[in-house]
Amino acid sequence: MAEQKQQDTASALKDIISHAKEYGFVFPSSEIYDGLQAVYDYGQNGVELKNNLKTLWWKAMTMLNDNVVGIDASIFMHPLTWKASGHVDSFNDPMIDNKDSKKRYRADQLLEARAEQYEAEGTPEKGKALLQEMAKFLDAGELDGIRQLIIDENIKCPISGTLNWTEVRQFNLMFSTQVGAVSEDASLIYLRPETAQGIFVNFLNVQKSGRMKIPFGIAQIGKAFRNEIVARNFIFRMREFEQMEMQFFVRPGTEMEWYNNWKETRLKFHKAIGLPAENLKFHDHEKLAHYANAAVDIEYKFPFGFKEMEGIHSRTDFDLGAHQTLSKKKQQYFDPELDENGKPYGNYVPFVVETSVGADRLFLAILCNAYTNETTGEGENLKERTFLKFHPAVAPIKAAVLPLVKKDGLAEKAQDIFHSLKRSFNTTYDDGGAIGKRYTRQDLIGTPFCIAVDYQTMEDETVTIRHRDSMEQERVHISELREKIGNAVSMERVFEQL
Amino acid sequence: MAEQKQQDTASALKDIISHAKEYGFVFPSSEIYDGLQAVYDYGQNGVELKNNLKTLWWKAMTMLNDNVVGIDASIFMHPLTWKASGHVDSFNDPMIDNKDSKKRYRADQLLEARAEQYEAEGTPEKGKALLQEMAKFLDAGELDGIRQLIIDENIKCPISGTLNWTEVRQFNLMFSTQVGAVSEDASLIYLRPETAQGIFVNFLNVQKSGRMKIPFGIAQIGKAFRNEIVARNFIFRMREFEQMEMQFFVRPGTEMEWYNNWKETRLKFHKAIGLPAENLKFHDHEKLAHYANAAVDIEYKFPFGFKEMEGIHSRTDFDLGAHQTLSKKKQQYFDPELDENGKPYGNYVPFVVETSVGADRLFLAILCNAYTNETTGEGENLKERTFLKFHPAVAPIKAAVLPLVKKDGLAEKAQDIFHSLKRSFNTTYDDGGAIGKRYTRQDLIGTPFCIAVDYQTMEDETVTIRHRDSMEQERVHISELREKIGNAVSMERVFEQL
Repeated sequence: MAEQKQQDTASALKDIISHAKEYGFVFPSSEIYDGLQAVYDYGQNGVELKNNLKTLWWKAMTMLNDNVVGIDASIFMHPLTWKASGHVDSFNDPMIDNKDSKKRYRADQLLEARAEQYEAEGTPEKGKALLQEMAKFLDAGELDGIRQLIIDENIKCPISGTLNWTEVRQFNLMFSTQVGAVSEDASLIYLRPETAQGIFVNFLNVQKSGRMKIPFGIAQIGKAFRNEIVARNFIFRMREFEQMEMQFFVRPGTEMEWYNNWKETRLKFHKAIGLPAENLKFHDHEKLAHYANAAVDIEYKFPFGFKEMEGIHSRTDFDLGAHQTLSKKKQQYFDPELDENGKPYGNYVPFVVETSVGADRLFLAILCNAYTNETTGEGENLKERTFLKFHPAVAPIKAAVLPLVKKDGLAEKAQDIFHSLKRSFNTTYDDGGAIGKRYTRQDLIGTPFCIAVDYQTMEDETVTIRHRDSMEQERVHISELREKIGNAVSMERVFEQL
Repeated sequence: MAEQKQQDTASALKDIISHAKEYGFVFPSSEIYDGLQAVYDYGQNGVELKNNLKTLWWKAMTMLNDNVVGIDASIFMHPLTWKASGHVDSFNDPMIDNKDSKKRYRADQLLEARAEQYEAEGTPEKGKALLQEMAKFLDAGELDGIRQLIIDENIKCPISGTLNWTEVRQFNLMFSTQVGAVSEDASLIYLRPETAQGIFVNFLNVQKSGRMKIPFGIAQIGKAFRNEIVARNFIFRMREFEQMEMQFFVRPGTEMEWYNNWKETRLKFHKAIGLPAENLKFHDHEKLAHYANAAVDIEYKFPFGFKEMEGIHSRTDFDLGAHQTLSKKKQQYFDPELDENGKPYGNYVPFVVETSVGADRLFLAILCNAYTNETTGEGENLKERTFLKFHPAVAPIKAAVLPLVKKDGLAEKAQDIFHSLKRSFNTTYDDGGAIGKRYTRQDLIGTPFCIAVDYQTMEDETVTIRHRDSMEQERVHISELREKIGNAVSMERVFEQL
């Protein structure tokens, strides 16, 4: 039963991966050179979908909130940034090698797999105990203990089948490179492993130049890089990925109020762009990171289970405090408002509530949710159909203009309509093949509206709009198209729900 | 005289750099750690300006042209990509070290400086001859010849003052890093030095999944990285930068027609977003790169002179051909159209015309052009004013709502107006200080429209719109604001000129 389920899961993701490639959403990177592991490219439809998600997030953050502004910091940062943030010292995964197969594994994942096995065998308490012991060793940095656990549990290398393990070592996940051509000035820098620090080091620049008053937020969209040991699940865990992060700076002591506030705001966002409530859930962190006093994930039900899509973290004053210490530059805000004693709150290092969503994970959630196989009718009339039921505001292409036939002036009429619409929203034109085939083509990339130009159009200037999900058709006048479709695909429809 | 001019130039750029920092456009990266050379961050106004430029370019490419689609390829690519493109073997700068000072220089720049000196001394023919000789040695890869030229010209190290030079060596400008945690699989990869190759390796993926017919184009916006030895002129030459590139695939033999076509189209774009014709010029490449059969720059008159902002290159079939050879995967298109003999053109490797503009350079051009110091009136009425005269479609903030005073319900009224506009376009609210000061604040960040709410507003629902450039005020009804300003700031105003 469990196996059956696992197979279905794997095949569901496989179908989506293959659909994504065939219809121009996601291609393996450098595919003509047999690809680059855990790196992907967005195709002509994927880039439009991703851009729509990024724009929706950006506007929801910076336009709907009066007190959130954006920045775009560089990927390269001064290396001390990562010393202050803790990444140089502790952004590690524990690794172990098998001496016979020469294969390397993540030690924690070997133990996690064993714990899952206990659960499948009906002895989950054994698994739980194992994970607790592992966590104890990891926290204490006792890597020998981790190795001993692996040996005690008799975990063998799946390749060599032996217990001939090396020591466990920590492996840093940051990519590094040398900057500067002049040899004596050349220095090691990192590709940022998160975008958040670009916001923290610019906190005072933005606050002062923008005359921002607490509480306020700084939003950013950008690439980050992690040398993942085991990258998997398509674009869910990539070595190069994109984050949409917002750091919200608040008066110390008010952080839990804002934390709860942003939790709800962010959940509402995901629902507003079309993810169903039953596929979304909060998952509180049981163990908090060193910088946090509260943390929750918004998980989405991917084909491979409920997994983190967004994190909301109350990061305290950890980051600004660490930068203040290391840079010796005060990271303080002067708060002129009066406390209950009538005195100004004065200078303090603000607390921070962060919302951090993976743009690629959100893309994958939207794609998985949209991917629909539908069977209608019975017997001879049984029909199967695959379509992508994107929210119109996120769909890559909003409308397709299709002349029923190319002759008798229908193609020219359709071209006129196409050209009158394409500057207002992303519109395509297709006159190749039977109209049914062309509807199918648009279904497969998730176009919500197909506009068919037929002989009646030539007489009364009306066309049909065919709706993707219901396949229903309605007759409308050409002059109504721009406003009718424009309204339906507008991002303002999403914002109304926020 | 020449010196005077140079000083003015330096000071003009300096003013712009300092304005950009003070008003939230561009900050030095990781400034609290004393910055990272040749890397910058975009602040809260800079990011909006840059996003507007990127969106304008993207829409002009993909929405106005029926046959151009986008992609978003990763920064990491398979290393063979850069072997095929020629970057591994020849993306080099010639370097020389002085043994006494231990300082490193670009050998070609030492000779170029000498040539400029000849010109300043009234003997430009000597400089020309020197550069020709240098080019000959560089082309032939004879680095000893370059070194001999430096010695013959008696070019001394400015630090040590000696002629004690090392050999000249080639230095590759690509950043590299190690990917993969499993030691035996770890491999050297590069940060892409240009975005174009991400398009070429996806040529067939896009053509097939998108059923594209030649001629068609693929557009992309993304980061690229070059370990520049001498990075300078603010954001003009950075180690991390952003490109907006479009590769247009055509039938061999038609490339010059398309090359000329795109030259004009791209020039028109720059004019449409507000760059004056007199500050733009074409500059044909005298010496063509190994992959090109025609190449031209669109130069903008920066404070430091006319410099390349965009390149338009006829790249022949060099890139696709090289990838075909190295990957052993056919990079061909089947062209069903009939030639003059009535036969299908059949299979061929398409030729490519590229348009490639630096997003940061375009940003800098727009900023330099917008930066205005104006003196009006005379004597006692003499007034100086600094403002950024951005085209309304590119301005970071479109409108500011300002209550004349905070009392008597004016602030509440202004807040209502602010909230009714902010979802339609980027709007801000400011009630701090005298209204004149608030106008100045908006001038300094280039907001085209200020909406003032005064006592008359409370009576007849009218407000004043104050125009940034003319400082003229007009009285309009609140109900007109959204459409009036919305129209003026719309990107469609730009597209109408294309």
